[in-house]
Amino acid sequence: MKMAMLVFDDFELLDVFGPLEMLGQLKESLSIDIVAERTGAISSVQGVEIVANRDFTQGIYDIIMVPGGQGTRREVSNPALLQWIVTHAWQCQYLCSVCTGAALLAKAGVLDGKRATTNKLAFDWVVSQSDKVDWVRKARWVQDGNIFTSAGVSAGMDMSLALISHIWGEAKAHHVADYAEYEWKNDPESDAFADKYTQVT
Amino acid sequence: MKMAMLVFDDFELLDVFGPLEMLGQLKESLSIDIVAERTGAISSVQGVEIVANRDFTQGIYDIIMVPGGQGTRREVSNPALLQWIVTHAWQCQYLCSVCTGAALLAKAGVLDGKRATTNKLAFDWVVSQSDKVDWVRKARWVQDGNIFTSAGVSAGMDMSLALISHIWGEAKAHHVADYAEYEWKNDPESDAFADKYTQVT
Repeated sequence: MKMAMLVFDDFELLDVFGPLEMLGQLKESLSIDIVAERTGAISSVQGVEIVANRDFTQGIYDIIMVPGGQGTRREVSNPALLQWIVTHAWQCQYLCSVCTGAALLAKAGVLDGKRATTNKLAFDWVVSQSDKVDWVRKARWVQDGNIFTSAGVSAGMDMSLALISHIWGEAKAHHVADYAEYEWKNDPESDAFADKYTQVT
Repeated sequence: MKMAMLVFDDFELLDVFGPLEMLGQLKESLSIDIVAERTGAISSVQGVEIVANRDFTQGIYDIIMVPGGQGTRREVSNPALLQWIVTHAWQCQYLCSVCTGAALLAKAGVLDGKRATTNKLAFDWVVSQSDKVDWVRKARWVQDGNIFTSAGVSAGMDMSLALISHIWGEAKAHHVADYAEYEWKNDPESDAFADKYTQVT
């Protein structure tokens, strides 16, 4: 299988590298491209740069993963990026987002009629991108058919393990988590942050 | 303060980006360089490349962080990298490793007489790098004075939050963890993996 991790300037580091730590262990089953509007160095919110090896003119993918980060505030108004999402959402088997990446999927219209979740601190902004999505405030991640959306940042690791479990089996997901000495929160409804931020804001 | 994240080909992704997700939130207090023997693209075990912005001839740092990954098997025999560690271990305020990064610190001799931990799957290989270290098999992370060493991969996030707590206070560490929707395991002795791997091997 082939996977595209979409990146854009001001992506959130762990939104990208949490899932890549987990899915990147499946080298024999899965190849991963880092896809951006233009190839080359792409800067994270934290300033660290990674290298995009494919641009929007290349590739067909089985899995599409869209991260969040401050850059989503700009990219919801980028027609080229939204068109890439629409095209690949039709072609892929699994469509995934981490954190505010769900705002990009929602704005592109590919979550219409679907259940989805997102970052809790930025929940209201993400929800404002589309009123056609059945937004779930309290969730670590949400699976609706072949669409997986996670809560903020580190929740992308738990969702990625759920995706691995769905495709390759739960034993494989536990093996991957154990390799990373990561205690997988294998319950999509276990969310310690929804209530915390609802109380604060 | 200034921090150097050391990288080398075949580093483990989350060893680098878990800590950077946490410490990278402290932009007003901490600037971070990605340091390698040569600047430019450096490839992870998983294949994804990041950009090193400083080489071994540049910089003085308050915090040194050394990740693990398969590349450590090669780098324990790299005199230039070991010399960089020795030089910066003397100059820095805090010396840290994630996962098998402890093998590089041990081989460089900067853990002599210190308590330290490392990845559990690779524990015996790391320990073989130095018999002058007081190795701790069961730990999420170990702090010995100004030296912080973590267990495998995802344990680097918990250790980084402990470092943030040590320098900037526990409230700041909780704020950083909450932002990342990460449930900080704030107990260095809580280790679910040491016994698991001891039973298996």
